[in-house]
Amino acid sequence: MYQLIKKDKNTKARLGIVTTEHGQIEAPFFMPVGTNGTVKSLTFEDLLGFDSQVVLSNTYHLFLRPGMDVIKNAKGLHKFVNWERPILTDSGGYQVFSLTKFRKISDEGVEFRSHIDGALCFFTPEKVVEIEEVIGADMIMPLDVCAPYPCERKEAIQSVERTTQWAKRSREYFLNNCNKNKKQFLFGIIQGATYKDLRERSAQEILSVGFDGYAVGGVSVGEPVEEMFKTLDWVMPILPEDKPRYFMGIGLPDQIVKAVSEGIDMFDTCIPTRYGRHGTALTSTGKYIVKNSEYSNDLGPIDKNCDCRVCQKYSCSYIRHLLNVGEILGLHMVSYHNVYFYVNLMRRIRAAIKEDRYQQFMEDFLKQYGSDLI
Amino acid sequence: MYQLIKKDKNTKARLGIVTTEHGQIEAPFFMPVGTNGTVKSLTFEDLLGFDSQVVLSNTYHLFLRPGMDVIKNAKGLHKFVNWERPILTDSGGYQVFSLTKFRKISDEGVEFRSHIDGALCFFTPEKVVEIEEVIGADMIMPLDVCAPYPCERKEAIQSVERTTQWAKRSREYFLNNCNKNKKQFLFGIIQGATYKDLRERSAQEILSVGFDGYAVGGVSVGEPVEEMFKTLDWVMPILPEDKPRYFMGIGLPDQIVKAVSEGIDMFDTCIPTRYGRHGTALTSTGKYIVKNSEYSNDLGPIDKNCDCRVCQKYSCSYIRHLLNVGEILGLHMVSYHNVYFYVNLMRRIRAAIKEDRYQQFMEDFLKQYGSDLI
Repeated sequence: MYQLIKKDKNTKARLGIVTTEHGQIEAPFFMPVGTNGTVKSLTFEDLLGFDSQVVLSNTYHLFLRPGMDVIKNAKGLHKFVNWERPILTDSGGYQVFSLTKFRKISDEGVEFRSHIDGALCFFTPEKVVEIEEVIGADMIMPLDVCAPYPCERKEAIQSVERTTQWAKRSREYFLNNCNKNKKQFLFGIIQGATYKDLRERSAQEILSVGFDGYAVGGVSVGEPVEEMFKTLDWVMPILPEDKPRYFMGIGLPDQIVKAVSEGIDMFDTCIPTRYGRHGTALTSTGKYIVKNSEYSNDLGPIDKNCDCRVCQKYSCSYIRHLLNVGEILGLHMVSYHNVYFYVNLMRRIRAAIKEDRYQQFMEDFLKQYGSDLI
Repeated sequence: MYQLIKKDKNTKARLGIVTTEHGQIEAPFFMPVGTNGTVKSLTFEDLLGFDSQVVLSNTYHLFLRPGMDVIKNAKGLHKFVNWERPILTDSGGYQVFSLTKFRKISDEGVEFRSHIDGALCFFTPEKVVEIEEVIGADMIMPLDVCAPYPCERKEAIQSVERTTQWAKRSREYFLNNCNKNKKQFLFGIIQGATYKDLRERSAQEILSVGFDGYAVGGVSVGEPVEEMFKTLDWVMPILPEDKPRYFMGIGLPDQIVKAVSEGIDMFDTCIPTRYGRHGTALTSTGKYIVKNSEYSNDLGPIDKNCDCRVCQKYSCSYIRHLLNVGEILGLHMVSYHNVYFYVNLMRRIRAAIKEDRYQQFMEDFLKQYGSDLI
């Protein structure tokens, strides 16, 4: 599945290729988040237009709506949404565990109430893999127990132990019950909250179960950014070189650039579309609230260093007006720019690794972005 | 401005060309409504993609937001929104007169309160033309007095008289105060509510003022469809052949097809985007509420006779899901199809006139659409 192409000379950044049934993905890569089977306010033509290699969708959300009957009827998510490139599905563990008042966890699985209509549902590790087989994504995440932040040691231990148990059951179900003709890759997820020994233990346990790729989960749940990066210090040395490494739910552009230097290959975050919907643009020089009245008469683009369709054709003045009057086109334009910025950032990252200049690229980027991570 | 190319053999339908500073428009044509400087939920790339020849925008709305300073700073609406093809601006008379509780009409003009922030504004015929010169649309509508439905004869007479007075003042201001280098065409608007003699009187008065084109206004304000078409019976014989004729705010697809057979050249309506936002598709076989659960598992397109991007690529099942979960992409897709359907309908209409088969085209269309107008 993963082929290491080259390592950067001066950092731990690496170039690789993930090969799936729906095509190859050059790594490191970013997966635009399409929770409900659509990247919010963008069309799939937009994503193809700027060559997004892959999208992410969400098992929990798709299970609730449109439901498995509809996905099955369409013969899987690719056909349902008419996207022929790779897809990764998150298990929905994160979403279920966010429903703190409406879920009960046991060794068996997690009982929860739908956030839509309150219907009682039960997810087990086996059930989630079964759903993900119907959805048919190329890369699938198992059900894990995502510890909150802050997290007592006792709770963190339980999260690690259950995650390992569930990882084994997911793997077993996947090997014994899933259609061998569907080439899906199952990832393992590492938990352990902010405890070094627990993160190391989780990594070793998940590794010993054996997966097609490894994800660092339970991050970006409210912890300080330094804590988030400490997790990588602890876990990365344990992970094998021949499997892709996924930093789940990360992050802001500077965090991605930094995490790549630690050897991460895969990213996802709803930041570009969420920020876009609120009229905040992410650019090479930081973030800008385009909705602010200071942009009323600014005839320049959102980002003068950007060659996306929106920055090539439309002014801050116009986009600010659209946001101000509540026109969909405004939030579409900012979201489009933001997702493009992420996808293009990954291209620049790969080019820098290829040419062994990642250290310099990172320093320049973090400086220009005004990052604290420098 | 208007060149008559040919008349249909068996109906009053006619083919023509409107030549503006921003290019030619083949008539009969439809103007997608871009009230706030954007056709709701569509990009200008979408409009170019299916070759929409022209868009309409609204003086009242643009005056309030973004305001004239911003439009002036951008050097007009074309540059502000980055649309290089023709634009028509409605005067906003209809909008102002809809604010029944917040406006006071006098011979001088109309005082009203902004629907945004309640600010007191005053529109005179001169002021509206002045604003429209700043906006810089290729075709501009003067301030008129739009009579409601139903309308007492006394009120209808006043509407006709003021509309004529204001038409004269608009024309005068336009000739004496506007930049001659900007090639803008000023239209006259015919009022008269549902009274034959008043419609005829208004048409004759507006004609004697003399304009670049003529519009039938004060229609589609709640009157029965037969009343609406009676207006055409009365007015059309009075209008000259060498000027374009605009049926303002009309209409449903079958109404457009019918009105073309009476000799109308220009149409606008927010129906395709408004219906689109509510998940209702307009097709050659009538309208469909795509959001309905009966489409949950329908893998066919919205309209099997349509070759638009959405119908070529996406199923009712997927679009219904998007609408159901409140994703913007859902209402974008239905709006896109609907506007395409209108733009393409006009192409089919022009082809039928060209080949002297408009009568047959109309009969077939109305039958297939399930229209009462047959």
